[in-house]
Amino acid sequence: MKIAVLGYGTVGRGVVTIVEGRARGVEVEKILDLPKNCTQPRMTPNYDEIVDDPSIEVVVECMGGLEPAHTFICRALRAHKSVVTSNKAVVAEFFDEFAALALENGVGLFIEASVGGGIPWIASIEKARRIDEISSFSGIMNGTTNYIIDSMAKEGLDFDIALGKAQELGYAERDPSADIDGVDVRNKTIISASVAFDVACTKDLPVTGIRTLTKRDMLMFENKGLQVKLFGRGVQRDGSYAVAVEPVAVPRESMEAAVPSNFNLVSLEGATVGPLKFYGQGAGSLPTGNAMVQDVLDAAAGRVPCYDFTRGLAYDPSLLTSNYVYRTTVGAPRDAEWYASGAWMLKHLTAVEARETFSKVLEKDPAAFMAAIAKEA
Amino acid sequence: MKIAVLGYGTVGRGVVTIVEGRARGVEVEKILDLPKNCTQPRMTPNYDEIVDDPSIEVVVECMGGLEPAHTFICRALRAHKSVVTSNKAVVAEFFDEFAALALENGVGLFIEASVGGGIPWIASIEKARRIDEISSFSGIMNGTTNYIIDSMAKEGLDFDIALGKAQELGYAERDPSADIDGVDVRNKTIISASVAFDVACTKDLPVTGIRTLTKRDMLMFENKGLQVKLFGRGVQRDGSYAVAVEPVAVPRESMEAAVPSNFNLVSLEGATVGPLKFYGQGAGSLPTGNAMVQDVLDAAAGRVPCYDFTRGLAYDPSLLTSNYVYRTTVGAPRDAEWYASGAWMLKHLTAVEARETFSKVLEKDPAAFMAAIAKEA
Repeated sequence: MKIAVLGYGTVGRGVVTIVEGRARGVEVEKILDLPKNCTQPRMTPNYDEIVDDPSIEVVVECMGGLEPAHTFICRALRAHKSVVTSNKAVVAEFFDEFAALALENGVGLFIEASVGGGIPWIASIEKARRIDEISSFSGIMNGTTNYIIDSMAKEGLDFDIALGKAQELGYAERDPSADIDGVDVRNKTIISASVAFDVACTKDLPVTGIRTLTKRDMLMFENKGLQVKLFGRGVQRDGSYAVAVEPVAVPRESMEAAVPSNFNLVSLEGATVGPLKFYGQGAGSLPTGNAMVQDVLDAAAGRVPCYDFTRGLAYDPSLLTSNYVYRTTVGAPRDAEWYASGAWMLKHLTAVEARETFSKVLEKDPAAFMAAIAKEA
Repeated sequence: MKIAVLGYGTVGRGVVTIVEGRARGVEVEKILDLPKNCTQPRMTPNYDEIVDDPSIEVVVECMGGLEPAHTFICRALRAHKSVVTSNKAVVAEFFDEFAALALENGVGLFIEASVGGGIPWIASIEKARRIDEISSFSGIMNGTTNYIIDSMAKEGLDFDIALGKAQELGYAERDPSADIDGVDVRNKTIISASVAFDVACTKDLPVTGIRTLTKRDMLMFENKGLQVKLFGRGVQRDGSYAVAVEPVAVPRESMEAAVPSNFNLVSLEGATVGPLKFYGQGAGSLPTGNAMVQDVLDAAAGRVPCYDFTRGLAYDPSLLTSNYVYRTTVGAPRDAEWYASGAWMLKHLTAVEARETFSKVLEKDPAAFMAAIAKEA
């Protein structure tokens, strides 16, 4: 089977390396890249050469960003080619459009690599759903922020130093906003909720990152037997669902607290199977490339993943409530209880209410921090 | 699709419950049980009625034990019926015979539920192997012993009290030997190695359980920043493999140390995907039933799992070496170093050598305990 690879950066190179060394029967026919990078005969800067080539059955998109990835994916699906993508931003934004186009043209939309890198997360949700309704999912979906938090916890580093180390190691971009402000986790949460709950997930969800997390915050939670992690999560109950991205303080002895370095740990809960957790490399050339080649092999085996978001589940933020801690110099939010020195707790807020309160606090104290307290803590 | 369920105990009931409530298109045509238990028209004590019924496509074996399960599975495969089984003892003993029969008769042998209960472990190994050679696997494969160890660690219980609690909760049998002596993990390790390494795994592997683990042992390791867990593990390198079952002292901050109650956590390592870990309920009516119904759904979808053990990998115990700690009142084994009060360490032993040394120690001190020290500790 012949495939084309769009983008020849970290992930694209991983895909080509794995296909050539390990995927019998799959051939990289064309690689799309900028004109100046086209150093091999099979490389082209012209997408028409790919989309108009009837011998290419699968287009593997690893460009990232919204455009031209969005246009290229739509054109591939319309040309009856299956699409494999690792691009969480474009899937989160256009999942329903891609799913409808794939269905209409009888081809597959493969998105395993868009969440959790090499972890078979999307496949596991889909498999669990054959039997169970997924009542909730949650977890550590961003390796960069986990690396930062883990370095702060284990080596006592300041946030900026830990971020700098992550950048040196190539775990964080020069502009780290997408990671530390929760945008990356937001996209992965939207995708996970769409697959788990069979719904075109809302894009208007509460999102809070860890930009203002300090060593002192870590210590404050440590004194309570807790550790902060950045979570994406979703719940479903009685025909409604809710989703959120926020720092969560989990018990120090939990599986989530133990996740080291830049690893991911994602969980789901089904009625009969109970809780399942999946751990692995959430990013990187070979793990993400591995997930994309797994999708290519599934496409070659005739699998046609199908997403149908016409079920009409309602978005209901009241399904997702926690107790929240606010650390700020501007004093207690209204109705808050004392939690620790310079920190207050508000009980039984929805994630949306918690984020609204936090936005007000941030107006006066841009260095404030907020975290939900895990239910089991 | 019509199926028959052999055995109507904990797991068999789970399978029937899930099929009837959640598996569209699957019908439980017959249930095999003892004459006195046959209270429904579809129940029969006569296996001929099942194996001779051409309408039954899949036989779901949840009887446990070697016979008659072994004979019934062989007869089903010869009658061109796919077999789904949760019976680790019979698969560990007869895997190559079953695999050859399934191949010969063009039907599937489905064994997901035999290791890790509801965790998609066998499927994940098989998926990873499409791209990567599995260089190693390891993990907590027995919920009963994890529950005992976790209760000893968190509540400071003695071994016997923790075992009694596990029995009360239905996690441990009246005769707990299969769990606490490592026999159950041995079977799961043989099955995992067979699938991961494509080999008819040796049945002559070193096996040590946790029968002699004491509160004082827990404390000794705790003082070194370690926690004991019962591990099954296997490695593969350069055309050879090794396997072992033994207590392993892992760092307190590791994912394995964090596994609570009766949960399982199993890991594999592949060249491109890196480490993957899978966590969930390793036993129980609904989780194990879930894994079996997943297999039934795969059979209905036309999947035919195929195991071919003709690769001829060599068994080489020297691939698996660790440092070992022996706690005993009879004094230091030869060449041992002092480790802690009443405990000695032997370095760079193979698991086979370590077990031989432990057997000699046990002759003089039947209450002695042994654990490997994890490489990363």
